[in-house]
This record gives sequence, C-alpha cells and structure tokens, in this order.
Amino acid sequence: MIETDILIIGAGPTGLFTVFEAGLLKLRCHLIDALAQPGGQCSEIYPKKPIYDIPAYPEILAGDLTEKLLEQGKQFQPGFTLGERAETIDKQDDGTFIVTTNKGTKHKAPVVAIAGGLGSFEPRKPKIDNLAQFEDNGVEYMIKEPELYRDKDVVIAGGGDSALDWSIFLTDVAKSVTLIHRRNEFRGALDSVEKVQELKNLGKINLITPAEVKGILGDDKVTGVVVEQKDKEPFIIDTDHFIPLFGLAPKLGPIGNWGLEIEKNAIKVDNSLDYQTNIPGIYAIGDVNTYPGKLKLILCGFHEATLMCQSAYKRIFPDKKYVMKYTTVGGVEGFDGTKKEAPKAVVKAIN
Amino acid sequence: MIETDILIIGAGPTGLFTVFEAGLLKLRCHLIDALAQPGGQCSEIYPKKPIYDIPAYPEILAGDLTEKLLEQGKQFQPGFTLGERAETIDKQDDGTFIVTTNKGTKHKAPVVAIAGGLGSFEPRKPKIDNLAQFEDNGVEYMIKEPELYRDKDVVIAGGGDSALDWSIFLTDVAKSVTLIHRRNEFRGALDSVEKVQELKNLGKINLITPAEVKGILGDDKVTGVVVEQKDKEPFIIDTDHFIPLFGLAPKLGPIGNWGLEIEKNAIKVDNSLDYQTNIPGIYAIGDVNTYPGKLKLILCGFHEATLMCQSAYKRIFPDKKYVMKYTTVGGVEGFDGTKKEAPKAVVKAIN
Ligand SMILES: Cc1cc2nc3c(=O)[nH]c(=O)nc-3n(C[C@H](O)[C@H](O)[C@H](O)COP(=O)(O)OP(=O)(O)OC[C@H]3O[C@@H](n4cnc5c(N)ncnc54)[C@H](O)[C@@H]3O)c2cc1C
Ligand SMILES: Cc1cc2nc3c(=O)[nH]c(=O)nc-3n(C[C@H](O)[C@H](O)[C@H](O)COP(=O)(O)OP(=O)(O)OC[C@H]3O[C@@H](n4cnc5c(N)ncnc54)[C@H](O)[C@@H]3O)c2cc1C
Repeated sequence: MIETDILIIGAGPTGLFTVFEAGLLKLRCHLIDALAQPGGQCSEIYPKKPIYDIPAYPEILAGDLTEKLLEQGKQFQPGFTLGERAETIDKQDDGTFIVTTNKGTKHKAPVVAIAGGLGSFEPRKPKIDNLAQFEDNGVEYMIKEPELYRDKDVVIAGGGDSALDWSIFLTDVAKSVTLIHRRNEFRGALDSVEKVQELKNLGKINLITPAEVKGILGDDKVTGVVVEQKDKEPFIIDTDHFIPLFGLAPKLGPIGNWGLEIEKNAIKVDNSLDYQTNIPGIYAIGDVNTYPGKLKLILCGFHEATLMCQSAYKRIFPDKKYVMKYTTVGGVEGFDGTKKEAPKAVVKAIN
Repeated sequence: MIETDILIIGAGPTGLFTVFEAGLLKLRCHLIDALAQPGGQCSEIYPKKPIYDIPAYPEILAGDLTEKLLEQGKQFQPGFTLGERAETIDKQDDGTFIVTTNKGTKHKAPVVAIAGGLGSFEPRKPKIDNLAQFEDNGVEYMIKEPELYRDKDVVIAGGGDSALDWSIFLTDVAKSVTLIHRRNEFRGALDSVEKVQELKNLGKINLITPAEVKGILGDDKVTGVVVEQKDKEPFIIDTDHFIPLFGLAPKLGPIGNWGLEIEKNAIKVDNSLDYQTNIPGIYAIGDVNTYPGKLKLILCGFHEATLMCQSAYKRIFPDKKYVMKYTTVGGVEGFDGTKKEAPKAVVKAIN
C-alpha cells in the first residue's frame, strides 16, 4: 500500500504543479497516470509544439514545460505509479481514501486530487483477433522502458510522430527495427520524417509501406507478425515485439463512476472556494473540472491547484494555523534536505 | 483623451499579463501606474530577488519576470501612462468610463480592470519644511528619465538598494553624485554596496554619512541643500537635484472612494464567475481583490486576468460568439502585424 498526503490522479501539468504547491505546505504527493511518462496532453499529444500563453513564457515547448514542472517539484520527491489507470476509490471509516489501479496497485491518502484532464489516455488498438492475449507479452501500446528492447527484434506500426520518433530512438537499442504504415506518407515533424528516411537509406530501419499487420504469431509470447502489403502475398516477419503506436485518446473512464457530479464529461467543483467536488476530500483541478466560466487552459490549472492545496491542508491539519510566506521571503525547503533561498541583503558600512 | 478597450490600473505582473490575454481576444489595453516603470511590487520592492513559485520557473528574478511579461505582451502594443496616479472615475451615459490621473491625463474605456496590487506606490518623503514647493523642480522621489540628470549635480539621500543603485548608475550620467545617508551602514545587495565603496574610493561618488538633508535652497528651482553631519556644523552643497530615495509604500488611495465594495483594504469581487466588482464593467484582479480563499500570489493574478478578459469580451461584444483556440493551434497574431505560429506537421512520403 502506497501512502501519501495528497494522491493525485493525473500527472499532467496540473498534477505536476500540485506537487510543488503541496510541498510548500509540507504535504507529500503521489501521482498515478495511465501514461508511461508524466506531462499529460503536453507530453502525449504535442511535446514538440510551442505554447505561447504560459505566463512569462513568450514561448515554451510543451515538452520543456513538463521538464520545468518536474524540476520545480523535484525537491518534494513525488512518487509515481505510471502506466496504470486509477480504477476504483473506497472511502475508509477514518475518512481516508484507497484508490486501486487496473493493475491492482493500492494507494491511500486523506485527500485525493483528480487532475485527470480529458481523461485517462488509452491506446487506439489495431483490429487483430488475437491481439489481447499478447498484451504485455510482446505487444505494447506505449514504450515505458526502452531497455526492454535491447538487442531485440522490434516491429512498430503507425504513421505519426510517436511511430517515427520511437523508430529512430530504438535503432540505437534494438537488434532490428521494422516500421510498418498503411500509407507511404507519414505525418509528423519534418526533421523526424527526414531522419527516418535517412535511417531507412542506411538500412537501419526496415520500412514496409503501404502495409498492415494482420495477425500475431506465438504461443505465450510474440514470435512474429503477419503482414499484408499492397500487391503482395501476406508474409511473416519474425519479431520479439509488436508495438502499435496509433495514438492514445483520453477517456474519462472509471472516474465517471465514482459518485462525482459530472457535467459535460467533466467533474463539477466549487470554484467559489477550493475546487472541491461533491465528495468532501476529493478535489478536481485542471481540465477535468467544470464550473461557470471554466477555461481549459494550463495556467488555470496552476491556480486551481494552489487554492486546492490550501484547502487540503486544512482538511489534513484542522487544528494547525497555516501562515503563508512568500517563497522569496521564506525560501523553499525540500523533503530531500535542499533549500532554495534568496540571497540576503547585507548591512554594511561604506567608509 | 486616451481611448482603449480595457483600461488597466496598475502595471504589476497581473496588469501586464492582462495585456496578453486581452490581445488574444483582439482587445487593446492601456495601463496607468504611479510608478515610473512597469512591474509593480516586483520592480519596486524586490527586482533582484528570486521567486520560486512561478509555475514552470524553478527560479526567476522578479525583475526578469517583469521583462518576460513585457516581452509576451509586446505584440499587443499596450499604451502606458507612467508616474501618474489614477484619481477619479466617471461613468458616461454610454456605459464607458473616464479615468483621470493626478496630473489630469484622461483615459476612456468600456472596461476598467483594477490591478492595483496593494495600492498606488507613493514615496516616503523626508521631513523638510519647504520640500513640497520644489517637487518636480529639482526634487524627485523616483527616477523616470535618467537623461534629465545628464551633466547635472545630483544629491541622492537614502540607504537602501534604490539609493545605492541609482548612485552607481548616475555616476556615468551626472556631473557629480553625492550620496547622503543617516547611518554609515547601507542595506542592500552585497555587490551594490561594494560597487558604491569602489566608486567612492575612485572619487566618483561623494559619500556623506552619517548625515541628513535638513533644508533646500533655491527660488523656483533647487540650487542647493543644507546638510547636517554628525559632529559638524551644518553646511551647504550646491546641487541641481535632490532625490530622496526612502522607498515607496503602497496606499489603496483614491480607488477606495470609487464606490467599490471594500473589505480588508481590498476590493470584493465575484470569484465564482469573472472577478467583476459591484460596479458592472469594473473588474479587480491580482493582489487588489479579495474573495473567500484569496491568496495574494502572482500566479493567481494570471488566472484571474484570463477569466476577466473573457467576461470583458462579452461586455464589449455582447453579440459576438468567441471561440477559444489554443495558442499552440491558432498561433498568436499581434496588433503589430507579427504572428507567432507552431511549425506545422508535414505529410511526406518516405521512399
Ligand atoms: C494540441 C493541443 C494544444 C494545446 N495548446 C494549449 C495552449 O496553447 N495553452 C494552454 O493553456 N493549453 C493548451 N492545451 C490544453 C492543455 O494541454 C491542457 O489544458 C492541459 O494539458 C491540462 O492539464 P491537466 O494536467 O489538467 O490534464 P492533462 O494534461 O490532460 O493530464 C491528465 C492526465 O491524467 C491521466 N488520467 C486521467 N484519468 C486517469 C485515471 N483514471 N488513471 C490514471 N491516469 C489518469 C491522463 O492519462 C493524463 O495523462 C492544448 C491541448 C492540445 C491537445
Ligand atoms: C518582498 C516580497 C516578496 C514576494 N514574493 C512573492 C513570491 O515569492 N511569490 C508570489 O507569488 N508573490 C510574491 N510576492 C507578492 C507579489 O509581488 C504580488 O502578488 C504581485 O506583485 C501582485 O501583482 P499585482 O500586479 O496584482 O500588483 P502589484 O505588483 O502590487 O502592482 C500594482 C501596481 O498598481 C499601481 N497602482 C495602484 N493603484 C494605483 C492608482 N490609483 N494609480 C496608478 N497606479 C496604481 C501600483 O503603483 C503598482 O505598481 C512578494 C511580495 C513582496 C513584497
């Protein structure tokens, strides 16, 4: 059982900034995310694209935003349960909550902050009859640990940025990389497309287009895939892994059944106070919530997270009085023993 | 008469970010500030100190934050009335407002956003009988235009960062710089104190401590000051300017008499919707407002400004339907003809 002060569901920008604001109040956080990496929409949908409306960043790539937020929260040593979906929530007699993932991991906390964005990112899967039986046995829909593919034969399917970028990355890791796409045209950042062309010319990526994987071979583990290429007989490629990267789409999913008031596919909260839901102790912040005038913007999630942490503090320590100190004045003391501090003014005679 | 869409009172971080958010909605802004420069508390009180809780900035100097916000808003060509205090507001029959400053400058707009922070920054003045009669005739409490002091004799009084930093800066501009402080010890950034020591040793700053200016000489313009130094007879220093830099303190001031609901020295707003005050068309955002759970933090002002702009848009264009576009997707089109835009994905065959 993982125990923490604030259990955050969703490691998008809102969830990540919550770690920092909670840390200032000496509250610890743990984050659950269905994705293999933190960053939410920013890292799954548009990591290499610039955002122009993050305050005081005339321009920042979504991926860099994620990095900065992780760096800012690092002092507060957040825990992560990645690649798992929060499935059920149970309120205990002592008022705490237990949240269990689809893989059975249990988390306990007095406060739950749902920062689930547009929902849990779920992979789009190809239609292959026996696909499900190979999941996690050679079929993966996202890459959590690249080392898993060291010296292995890998078949990637897809025509977007993920398929391109992971194909490029894995050429340095895997024994062989085959990229299969149902069209000749790929859609992605120009330099990714050009890099794949170059690696193909060098023989480092085995490109098969227009083609589709139609079957999987193997007993308990993948040993090969059946490929149908235009104007050819179906053929078999021996492989250890088949990685269909057809994008991940967010689904509100199980959270919709937690007894929370839902409106327009989002969770209603009290925006006049602390972004709490209809269940005391459960808050909803960022894209996942709704209230009059709500804007699904990153900067709004930052504010909501900050106010929410103050309320969480009062819930966890009903008797303590919290006195806010500016970070500039009080510094920032991490759980890791580090302290950030403004240089003090000196008082010094001039002679 | 200066006309604009949103008249912003206060050019602190909240006011500055409003320019950007309004610009995204194609609304123009003009800012009034009692200070000579934008940045509010960040530039007046702690420009060289780091802030740690600006989202995605693990650390940023308050002065740099101001720079970044100015840069982000630049495309939207904000107007500025600096060094003047908004004094009165008059509602016109057509629903617009006219705001007049203490210097008589008039501004007209359909929406007024008060981003006045802790109030208008007003200088702390030394107790000298005939001080008032020389104001703007050789006595200045803040430096708006350094060129005014080119080849002039200047006496600065004070013992903090402003006095130190302007003394340093003006050695390159003025004919002579005299720095007077009532103690031997100065309080400021170490490098500023050391630099003044160095310039004093070089004879570029004439340092007089512990001492105080007790009188001003001149007919309509300053020609000299009377100085009392410990263990000495009072003496006269000939000078063109006397600049007491004893700090500026914020006072809610005239805004307190505009008929707005005031609570705890701040303006009550409807935080459940759009941060509007009890007077429709007048909003209050940032440190200047109050509502249940309010935190006087920079990041909160950013969120409030953003929601407020949406409401202002509806007030100004009651019949237009605004469809929000992510900056990443729609780009940012400035009033100056520039456009920021994310590089588009390519669709390209790999052969
Ligand atoms: C193309 C594009 C461009 C954009 N441009 C801008 C822009 O310019 N400016 C701007 O402000 N915003 C922009 N946005 C929106 C911005 O990305 C979102 O507002 C932001 O990501 C919301 O952050 P969040 O942390 O609330 O949620 P998300 O980023 O959506 O993160 C939520 C996370 O929660 C996880 N999750 C949800 N439910 C569960 C569960 N049950 N179990 C486990 N994990 C779960 C999801 O997997 C996801 O990773 C853009 C969005 C897109 C798609
Ligand atoms: C030492 C110190 C450290 C701080 N550290 C942090 C920190 O770490 N993190 C954080 O989030 N916040 C911090 N703050 C607070 C932060 O600076 C404020 O929240 C922020 O400046 C508020 O921005 P604002 O734009 O709302 O108002 P302000 O910055 O106060 O700006 C308001 C402006 O309005 C002007 N004004 C007011 N009335 C009038 C009028 N009638 N006419 C003309 N002009 C007028 C004023 O002159 C002023 O320039 C700190 C503050 C101080 C003093």
